Order: sequence, then C-alpha cells, then structure tokens
Amino acid sequence: MAYQAPVRDQMFILRDVLEIETYANLPGFADASLDTVEQVLTEGAKFCEEVLAPINRNGDLEGCVWSPDNTVRTPKGFKEAYAAMVEAGWPALGSEPEYGGQGLPRVVNLAYSEMSSSANMAFSMYPGLTHGAYSAILAGGSDAQKDLYLPKLATGQWGGTMNLTEPQCGTDLGLLRTKAVPEADGTYRISGQKIWISGGEHDLAENIVHLVLARIEGAPAGVRGISLFIVPKYLPTADGGVGPRNEGVKCAGLEHKMGIHGNATCVMAYDEAKGWLIGEANAGLKLMFVMMNEARLGVGLQGLAQAEAAYQAAAAFAKDRLQGRSLSGPKNAEGPADPILVHPDVRRMLMDSKAILEGGRAFLLWAGLQGDLLHAHPDPAVREKASDYMGLMTPVLKAYFTDKGFKICSDAMQVHGGSGFTEHFPASQYLRDVRISLIYEGTNGVQALDLVGRKLAANGGRAVMTFFADVDAFVAEHEDEADLAPFIEGLKGAKAQLQEATMWLMQNGLQNPENAGAASTDYLHLFGLTGLAWMWAKLAIAADKRIKAGDADPYYARKLVTGRYFLERILPEAGAHLAKLKTGSALVMALDADAF
Amino acid sequence: MAYQAPVRDQMFILRDVLEIETYANLPGFADASLDTVEQVLTEGAKFCEEVLAPINRNGDLEGCVWSPDNTVRTPKGFKEAYAAMVEAGWPALGSEPEYGGQGLPRVVNLAYSEMSSSANMAFSMYPGLTHGAYSAILAGGSDAQKDLYLPKLATGQWGGTMNLTEPQCGTDLGLLRTKAVPEADGTYRISGQKIWISGGEHDLAENIVHLVLARIEGAPAGVRGISLFIVPKYLPTADGGVGPRNEGVKCAGLEHKMGIHGNATCVMAYDEAKGWLIGEANAGLKLMFVMMNEARLGVGLQGLAQAEAAYQAAAAFAKDRLQGRSLSGPKNAEGPADPILVHPDVRRMLMDSKAILEGGRAFLLWAGLQGDLLHAHPDPAVREKASDYMGLMTPVLKAYFTDKGFKICSDAMQVHGGSGFTEHFPASQYLRDVRISLIYEGTNGVQALDLVGRKLAANGGRAVMTFFADVDAFVAEHEDEADLAPFIEGLKGAKAQLQEATMWLMQNGLQNPENAGAASTDYLHLFGLTGLAWMWAKLAIAADKRIKAGDADPYYARKLVTGRYFLERILPEAGAHLAKLKTGSALVMALDADAF
Repeated sequence: MAYQAPVRDQMFILRDVLEIETYANLPGFADASLDTVEQVLTEGAKFCEEVLAPINRNGDLEGCVWSPDNTVRTPKGFKEAYAAMVEAGWPALGSEPEYGGQGLPRVVNLAYSEMSSSANMAFSMYPGLTHGAYSAILAGGSDAQKDLYLPKLATGQWGGTMNLTEPQCGTDLGLLRTKAVPEADGTYRISGQKIWISGGEHDLAENIVHLVLARIEGAPAGVRGISLFIVPKYLPTADGGVGPRNEGVKCAGLEHKMGIHGNATCVMAYDEAKGWLIGEANAGLKLMFVMMNEARLGVGLQGLAQAEAAYQAAAAFAKDRLQGRSLSGPKNAEGPADPILVHPDVRRMLMDSKAILEGGRAFLLWAGLQGDLLHAHPDPAVREKASDYMGLMTPVLKAYFTDKGFKICSDAMQVHGGSGFTEHFPASQYLRDVRISLIYEGTNGVQALDLVGRKLAANGGRAVMTFFADVDAFVAEHEDEADLAPFIEGLKGAKAQLQEATMWLMQNGLQNPENAGAASTDYLHLFGLTGLAWMWAKLAIAADKRIKAGDADPYYARKLVTGRYFLERILPEAGAHLAKLKTGSALVMALDADAF
Repeated sequence: MAYQAPVRDQMFILRDVLEIETYANLPGFADASLDTVEQVLTEGAKFCEEVLAPINRNGDLEGCVWSPDNTVRTPKGFKEAYAAMVEAGWPALGSEPEYGGQGLPRVVNLAYSEMSSSANMAFSMYPGLTHGAYSAILAGGSDAQKDLYLPKLATGQWGGTMNLTEPQCGTDLGLLRTKAVPEADGTYRISGQKIWISGGEHDLAENIVHLVLARIEGAPAGVRGISLFIVPKYLPTADGGVGPRNEGVKCAGLEHKMGIHGNATCVMAYDEAKGWLIGEANAGLKLMFVMMNEARLGVGLQGLAQAEAAYQAAAAFAKDRLQGRSLSGPKNAEGPADPILVHPDVRRMLMDSKAILEGGRAFLLWAGLQGDLLHAHPDPAVREKASDYMGLMTPVLKAYFTDKGFKICSDAMQVHGGSGFTEHFPASQYLRDVRISLIYEGTNGVQALDLVGRKLAANGGRAVMTFFADVDAFVAEHEDEADLAPFIEGLKGAKAQLQEATMWLMQNGLQNPENAGAASTDYLHLFGLTGLAWMWAKLAIAADKRIKAGDADPYYARKLVTGRYFLERILPEAGAHLAKLKTGSALVMALDADAF
C-alpha cells in the first residue's frame, strides 16, 4: 500500500488539541480558517502521495550522479517533481507574503512538511534546506540582500544550502578553517573545503545560494571569529536574474552514503569564490543557529515522518501476510492462515509505533505553534514563553523523535520478516534514510548536552520551571475528571520523575559537569516521555470531549486506546532513565583510554 | 584500526569462569588443554584478522553476481580465502574425528566462530550453514549417508544449505508446498521453489549439499507431513567424488538485500531434482530443528560478533577524532581539541556496548559449554540439565544478543558522527549486515514466543526452575563476600523480577495465551538481563580472585568497573520490562484491524 498522508490526524490536533482557531487575531492565522487549512493539507497530501512518493524508491536505487564537470544529476523524476512543487507554491506556504510567501502559520507548514518528508525524505531536503537559508537571510541579511534573495528562496526557484562542516571540524566549529579575504568592493573571497553539504549541487533549481561559515583574515581563533557569507552558484544580476557563474565554488564530489541517496551530499570546494557577508563580522554562528534551530525541529520531524511511512508499510504488510493462526482461534478460517496482525508480538510493535507517532505528531505541531506565537503574538510575555519553550524543546524533539523514529523503522522491518531485509519492500530504505536524522544538525548526544548544559540553565532555569508550572496547572484543571484519571496520573508520575532528575542535575551537574554529560541522554529521553505524556493527556481530553458530544467516529475511541497503551506500555521506561542518570559519571568515566 | 580478535577475553572466560580444564575427563576436552586452546585461538585470530577481515569491505561493495547460466560469482578474494580456510582446517574444528573433524570442544569452536563472524559475517555464513547441514545428517542420516557426506561437509570441501522458506511459507512451515515424488530406486524427485537460501549457489566449493524440506506426495497437510531431503548440486559418486550435475536444482536468482552482500542469498528452483530422504518420512521438521537450534545459537553469536567489530571501530574512532574539549579541562592541551572519548555521552555508548559484549561473550560461551556437556557428559543428569539449559537459553541468546547487537552497531555509527553514515567508514556495513540476524532462523518475536510458549512449559517448567535454583545456590555461596556485594545484589534483584514475571505468565498466560504472546518480548529481554547479571557476577568473582592473588594486570580491575557499569546503567531496564509485560494483552489486542 502506498503512503497515505495523515491529514485526519493532523486536523484533529490542529482543531481539537491546539485549537488554532483561537489565534485568529494573529497574522497568518486570520487567513487560516480550519476549512482553509484542511483544503491546503488535502491538496498537499495529494501532491505528496501522487508526485513525491512514487519517485522515492527510484531515488534510492539511482542516487545522484556527479560528473567531472562538477555538475550533479538527480534521480529520474526529481526535476519534474521539483518544478511541479515550485509551480504549486508548496515551498512558499509558511514564508512571508512580502517576499512572495503565502504567510500561512508555521504550524500548518510543519504539517505539510511531515507529509512531504514521509513521501520522499531525500527529495524534501532540497526545499527544506532552502527554507533554512531563507530564514537566516531573513533574520540577518541587509534589506538589499533580503530583496534580492528571499523571493527566489521563498518559492524554491533558487535552492539554498548550509555550509558548516569541514574535514577537521564538525561539532566543534571553533576548528573551522575556511577563510574569507575582503575585497575593495566590500565583497569577500572565500576559500576552503566544506563536506557533507546537502543539496550543494543539483539540477533542480536555476541557482543555488550557499550560506558559508568562514573566518575573515585576522579574525579571532575559535567560535568568536566566525562569519556567515552568501556565496551564490551564479552571481545574481541587479534585477534578481541569474548572472555569470561564481567560478570559485564547485562541487568536487559526492559522498557514498547508507541512505538518502536521492539527496546530493556534496564535497564543496571554495577557491576564492565571491561572497557577501551577512550580518556583522565574527557573529556568523548566531545567525547560523537561526537556520540550525529551525533545521533541528525539521530533523525531529523527519524522524517521525520516516517512521510514519515505515509504520504504514508494516501495518499494510501485517494485514496482508498470512502466516500462522491466532492464539485465540482462527480469524481467517477459510484462508490458509491468519494475517500476522493477529499475533500479539506483531501488534506490540505496531502499537508501540502508533503510540509514539500520534503523540509525537501532537508534540511537534505544538512546538510549531510555539514558533508562531514567538514570531507573531502581540503580548511580549507570550512571546517570551514561546521562545523559552522552543529553546527547551528543540533538542528534545530533535533527538527523541529521531531515536524513536529509527526504532519504529527497525520495528517496521521486523514486522516484514525476511521481506523487510530485501530491497523489494520499502522497509530497508526507510531504515537507511532515517538513520542520518540521529546524526546531522548536531548528533543526538550534542542535543542532549545542549539540553542539560545550556537550555536548562538559561535565564535561571525559567523554561523548565514554566514547563513544570504548565503541567501542574493542567493536572489541577483535569484532576477530578474520573474518565481521564489514567492520563492525569501518568502525566503526574512522569513529571515527578523529570523534576527529580532536574533536581539531581542541579545538585550534581554544577559541581561536576561530567555528571551532567553522563546523565544527558537519559534525561533527554525522560523529557521526551514526559512531553508525550502531556500530549497524550491533551489528545485524550479532546477525544473524550468528542465522544461525550456524541461523535460516533471510531477514531476517538481508538485514540483513547492508543493513549492508554502509551501509559501502560511505554511510559514505564521513565523509571529506568531516572535510575540510570542518577548513578552519575563515576563509572562512565572510570576507565583509561587503553581499556577501550 | 583493523579488527582485533578478543582472544585475551575469551581465554579469561574459558580458563577462569568456565574452568574448562575441569572437564578433561570428557572426549574432546582431554586434547584441549588451556595451552592448546590458546594456541588454536591465536592461530584462528590470525586467520580471521589477516585473511577474512581484509575482504569484508569489498565483499559488501561488490556483492555476489548471478549469471544466466545459474552460476554465482562471489566477491574478489572469497574463493582464495575459502580455499585457505579449508586447507587450514578451520571448519573442522569442532566436528567428529571419525568424519575428519578435529573433535575440539564446541565451546572452543564457538570462540573461533565469534572471531570469524566479526571479521567477515557474509563469508562466515558459508561454513556456518555447511556445519548446520553436517549436524542434521549426523543426527538423522543413515550410516551410508554419514559416510558419504560428513567428511566432505566437515572440512568444508563441500558446502551445505538449509532450504525451508517458500514465498508463501516462512515462520508457518505448515504452508510448505515443495513436493517429493518417490522413484522406484528409493530416491525422490523434488519440485518447488525455495527463497532466501544462504549459500544456495557459489563458486567456493566443489559441491553443495542442499537439505530441503518437502512434502511427499500424499503426506498429511500441515507440519506433520514434512520430510527432509538431501539434494546435492552434483550427484556424488560411490567413492565420494563429484559425479554428474543434478539437473533439476538450480539458482534462479539472487535477492537484493540491505546487507551481507558477500553472501549469496538465492532463489532456488527445484524441478524434479534427485533427492534422498534423511531419517523417517514426515519427520523432517524435527531434524531440521537440529540444524535450526545450532543455527540460532550461531545467529546470537553473529549479533554479538558484528557488535564487537563495530564497537572496536567506534572506540578507535573515538580515540582518534579530535573535537571539543573535556568538561573537566583539556586532555590534549597541545592539540587543537581533545579526542571525543573524553565526552561522557560518547563514553556512555562505548561502555553500554562493552558491558553487553563482555557479559554476552561469557553467556554465549557458557551456552557452548552446555552443548558439550549435553553431547559428551557421562552422567545422564548432567546431560539432561545441559539439554534443559540449551532449550531454554537458545531463544534468549538468539533474540537478546541480536537486538543488542543491532543497538551496539547503531551506537557505533553514532560515535562516528557523520562519518558513520558514509560508506568510507565500516559502521554502515556492520549496521546493515547485523540487521538480518534479528530476522533469520526465526524472527526475534518467534524466539520470544518459543520461550514463553514452549520452553518455559516443557517438562513442567523444569528448565526455568533449574535456572532459578542454580542462581539461588550461586547467590547463597557468595552472599557473604563483601567485595562482590553489588554483583550478588544485582543478580538477586534481577532474578526476583524474572521470577515474578514467570509467575505472572503462569497465572495469566495459560488462561489466555495472548497474555503470553503480548508479554513475550519483554519477558525475553528480562531473561537476557538476568542471564547477563549472572554472567557478570561470575566474571567479577573470577577477576576478583585474580586481583586478590596479586595479579596486577589492569584487565581485571577494568573487568570489575565494566561489570559495575552493567549493574548501574543497564540492569535498571529490568523493571520497565516487568512493568510492561504485567499489563497483559488487553490494550495490545484492543484495536480492530482498520485502526492500523
């Protein structure tokens, strides 16, 4: 069965859980009635299902091909699909109207992005990174730069890239060597090698705008001497057309990777390429993090999106494959065997997946809404809170949902049995494609360190205290609703464990930062579980309300079952994370290097 | 850094933990003094490191190539390595001397197999399956069949295969359709299609002996009508030479797979191929399970073996890659950054891996020793107990160590960061290769069902009660050794949880088998953890003894640290498994098929 976009589930979350209609006073939301949003998502679903999904497999099999003239050919059908996407305006969904965008809420754009990534992750990275470049120029570019580049990036007419990594420099950007030499005309000459540049070269767009981190000659060493440059593949003409080739930038080759073969992962060689500084000198890292934070949320979404597609394939296989009989008596007595969906352990894998996917979708869309509030709410207190939440939750969402996304893709392969290991079924591609999401835009370990080392401590711990207070208020509001008791109890318990872990970190992480480092991943997972418990309580309340209002759609009753499954079958992991992290760093760090 | 075989660790387990010298009264062990064993393993290590490991990567890149004349070409270097292996006698290590084997203990052969599989999993499957065919003929063949085939299979001069799966028939062998028509001369004509046949065709050996499950015309439907046949690629001459081609058997193509590209996974077409019945008609499944049980232990070993190789690559990378600074101050002040091994979260992944690998190695070798006792011990009570243990532990070892092996390979990729996702580093191949081990020889879910549905209940629960009694006696023996208290406490706690889970299964699984099915995987993992806790207590006692005897080798102190890491950082997962499994099957089974 081909991928089917979960518009029904997204609309339930947008309408009943996030209640986006209550934000009609905000720009963007005014034009986003539920009817409009449903129309947009239904059209988007059609595009993803009918245009992007059908070229996902051949994208994997063919991959991108580099030629000695430094060009890259994308897989068959990518060029046509890209043109259709630009034509239909999908990249511009969430971009600013003044630059040719449609100005819809971020949360709506995020829902579309999920479908797009599920249908074809490798393809969707091209517009995904382009939007990252758009955001960085929007945040830090001069008016002239914005006017020149944003309309092209918003629509996808031009592509965009992020250039951070160098062979000696990944997580530790202080080691960056690419240099920028100022010219008399105010431009710079950029020289150096960048690796793992997604979409660094391709045949999809008429131009590619590289955002490149480099060190201006004489700048301080370390991260305080890094600046951000615009280095376009073709130099734009004054009226925004495509001018001559920027001779000093070219793609020197492609990486041979385990997955996302349809996306060109480029080695980029800069040799006195012409570039323009964005924002202030030596302040490039801050701007790059504008892209990076947006990208991290997007990567968390990728984890979930691949998992959704893999889950759908596994569920379809489990209903179709006949093998063995139900332990409670034949369910397909006329057939030679029962569909394997009858077997409890197959169910366990599918239910594990479903519970994470549906809770995770709510969590990510909730975060998308925070992005809208942060950018558009008139009340500074609301903006501050949304900003705190985005800072706190971005590493959680990125790492937790890519870790779980990988697990779900692996379970989907397992449901397929031997078929899953062959490339005739889609399970292998999903597993191979999703694996990068645990690594790029900061490995999940780096996310965990960002959470415990930076985000928890920021503003005296304001963000996490806001979270605890919001959860407490939520619990107090619903504590006397007997039908929802398991959800409220589950949330209370998880929050108590997370609070205990947070206290432990405050008491032990400050005196010895290695305690924080050793605890970080378990803490992040405990955070992810608590966030999911909150989301599942919200989902349950919304579903319960529909049922009590007489809505007989089985969707709502199923939602409550899946939520209770989460409480009973997934949430117990919280205790193990708490126990592990409280053991501190002593045994983690005890062995000398020779012992490894 | 290239793979280095863990002979040091294996010898510690064989000598100090399993004390194999105490079994010198058994056949095989008499010739296996510790010195001899160390010599054999050291030579084996050399062969694996210098011959098998160097052709692992090109085996992945090239894969096997099928030709329309139904032949299969293995990757460059495989043919020469195979010949060198046969010449050196490695396949014959554990086989019976009367058939040309060296008759060393199974546990020694298992230690060699670990190294072989770590060095080159795809290659090692060829002799691995050959040994399975050897064992089935040894167990069920006539004297003439044994005399004809076993000497060729023991040495690897001929290859062997297992032919179970058909397109419509995987786990559920009752659906098998391949048919056998008796001929007047006592042979059979075999017709049907078999898929996923590892080593079904290749250019390594002069003949290939297929063991094929088929249904004799008129036999009962279901699993009671299945017989086992020998179907050689070339018909043997009376004196054991290679005669004419068995025209009715050929390889119709290869599977395109995610990993183990160096192993030929064949579609086998049987069209009136000449075959000989092994054992009795309609009793083929029992014989196939002789192969299968041996193969399952071998697959558990594969999980661990790939994980060991991946861990070694990750540890080497972590010592080499400079990125960031230690949270407790620079450790490589003269360099541009510290090796990433200083970061607690990188350590966490390596320590997680190390603790599972070293405990798992002991667990698997312990099981190998049970295999020796089962086959060779003069005391029937010892044989019975060993047989109980083998039955009980085989599904645990297969599923637990392949699940954990996959996790360790994924963590090894994570330690590599972006490099791990590229095919220039070995992490991707290990992850892709190991993934099949969770699936073949019975998926891990099937193992879990075998454990709760068959192995627990066999002989009135004798095996699991023996296990509990042995652990209790062990605890009683060591309970007053203060230095070892954490190990004994950890084991006691895990065993209590496993016992509680077992009671729960007895009370709830019988009345509703779906409770057992829904609990099975968590129960198996809880079993794996308890087994590891037992092994770590044994390892700690042995290491502690060496330290107290004045041995200053840091190996022993490190062993105690790694063991305590297991107790504090891995064993807490036991509680989550117990909590999950006790929730029963209600929520697992609640949703209708349309909900998925």
